Amino acid sequence: MSLLVVGSVALDSVYTPFGETADALGGSAVYFSVAASRLHPVQVVGVVGDDYPMQELTRLAPLGIDWGGVERAPGESFRWKGKYSYDLQSRETLETRLGVFADFRPRLPAGAEAAEYIFLGNIDPELQLGVLEQVKAPKLVACDTMNYWIQSKREALLALLARVDLLMVNDAEAREFSGDWNIHRAGRWLLKQGPSRVVIKQGEYGALLIEDGQTFAVPAYPLEEVFDPTGAGDAFAGGFMGYMAQRGATSTDAMRRAMVYGSTMGSFAVSGFTVKGFDGVTAADVAERVERFVALTHIPAAGPLT
Amino acid sequence: MSLLVVGSVALDSVYTPFGETADALGGSAVYFSVAASRLHPVQVVGVVGDDYPMQELTRLAPLGIDWGGVERAPGESFRWKGKYSYDLQSRETLETRLGVFADFRPRLPAGAEAAEYIFLGNIDPELQLGVLEQVKAPKLVACDTMNYWIQSKREALLALLARVDLLMVNDAEAREFSGDWNIHRAGRWLLKQGPSRVVIKQGEYGALLIEDGQTFAVPAYPLEEVFDPTGAGDAFAGGFMGYMAQRGATSTDAMRRAMVYGSTMGSFAVSGFTVKGFDGVTAADVAERVERFVALTHIPAAGPLT
Repeated sequence: MSLLVVGSVALDSVYTPFGETADALGGSAVYFSVAASRLHPVQVVGVVGDDYPMQELTRLAPLGIDWGGVERAPGESFRWKGKYSYDLQSRETLETRLGVFADFRPRLPAGAEAAEYIFLGNIDPELQLGVLEQVKAPKLVACDTMNYWIQSKREALLALLARVDLLMVNDAEAREFSGDWNIHRAGRWLLKQGPSRVVIKQGEYGALLIEDGQTFAVPAYPLEEVFDPTGAGDAFAGGFMGYMAQRGATSTDAMRRAMVYGSTMGSFAVSGFTVKGFDGVTAADVAERVERFVALTHIPAAGPLT
Repeated sequence: MSLLVVGSVALDSVYTPFGETADALGGSAVYFSVAASRLHPVQVVGVVGDDYPMQELTRLAPLGIDWGGVERAPGESFRWKGKYSYDLQSRETLETRLGVFADFRPRLPAGAEAAEYIFLGNIDPELQLGVLEQVKAPKLVACDTMNYWIQSKREALLALLARVDLLMVNDAEAREFSGDWNIHRAGRWLLKQGPSRVVIKQGEYGALLIEDGQTFAVPAYPLEEVFDPTGAGDAFAGGFMGYMAQRGATSTDAMRRAMVYGSTMGSFAVSGFTVKGFDGVTAADVAERVERFVALTHIPAAGPLT
């Protein structure tokens, strides 16, 4: 099943209490595809400037990521600079330079309009809608967004929600969008806007899959060392959608397992600076960590207990 | 298996965005035993003043709670007054009047020294140690504490930890005690101080059971209506210890199920003002909610998924 992601391909400068990095590979489409490619081939649509280190992209994951849909435009690549607090619980954006991203109008390359699994990374909801106009017969469309669009493009975002199957946001975004501090009511409000499922990411606490009449909760993997939370949400989305595409599935049961693959990929993402958390991570490593999630959440039956 | 709780029996005045209540039954021993008694008989040791509405205590749970160990002393009962923020995420203590609780020296009534399952509610760690001196052959000793004792009685608290099987604290307390913001490292540090297991309560996010080499995570029950978080942690402890006493168990598997019973009781506690969340809650209601937790966290096997 073909998997497509549209999002940012950026250069990140990140400061954490444990170190810093400048102009490293980043952006939602990069984190998504590095994670997804551990499970299923993925095609990327995005834009970079003529200063982007393309050879690093291709070196990043020699197999499974098709960067052919990443347009090269004259000018500077999208750059983000951020600094995390001592406990990594909050971050401050120091600088955002859109560069060529400011004029990004996603155009699907030949063949991509047939994509069945589609992730619309966090970009202008009008552009996300524009991508949906170009795809022909999607099986599962998921999208992300952020506070900036919730505030500035609410109508376009609501139009988008009416057309996607799955919204993936963090808890602060769910609360802001719905205007409700109770996360379960917020999830129900979001479902009413269109998507049949809502994933709410809760950082170190895990994530919820909310749908009509039922909720599924998965904890975060218990990590004693967290180096850089950047990209964890996009890696989660990559693990989730990579698993769904691999299985060719759309059911709740498949999505529950996809939540575990998402959490697994999020845990790799935060274990190293930028995308380096995925260095050397094999399919076997992923499978092993998925099994650890099963053990982490296993409730024994009520039979004889000593 | 006999179950004993030592803690406060108080009168709470609580303000939430949804209402307020004055001089209502409260305190750690009350919340604990109201929850535990749904699963197993419980004996309470505490103190009240001559102003305490004893008939309300006995009316609260006609079966299963032995209030005989609650001493009546001349003077005022322990009173706590608190106000919650609009989203119930934080609270301010408006007033604490210790009254007769200031001179509380727990004395176990005849027979109670044979108790096998013991919960030392959040009181001065020197008094908690004093209770342990009086019990003869405990099977499972759990204790709670709070920031006040962590700051003011650290040595006594460390002496206590060396003698208990299980510490139950919330995440802020675990962080403060260990001096480590990473909750999993904090848990490991606490294990090194003595207890073989640490439960870390995370409010609306659930709870962790941490022991050497493995962790178990249970989410909070997805509630769209939360009225009053007061006592949720003690109700959790009551559900946990009530289940362990009912099963006569001490194993990890039993504790994993006990975590679910604890979370279940916590969810009832927050569903009404003060202890009213438990009004009319039967053993069948508890069993049904426990099954819902199993469904909430169920990860389907990797077989055919559609």
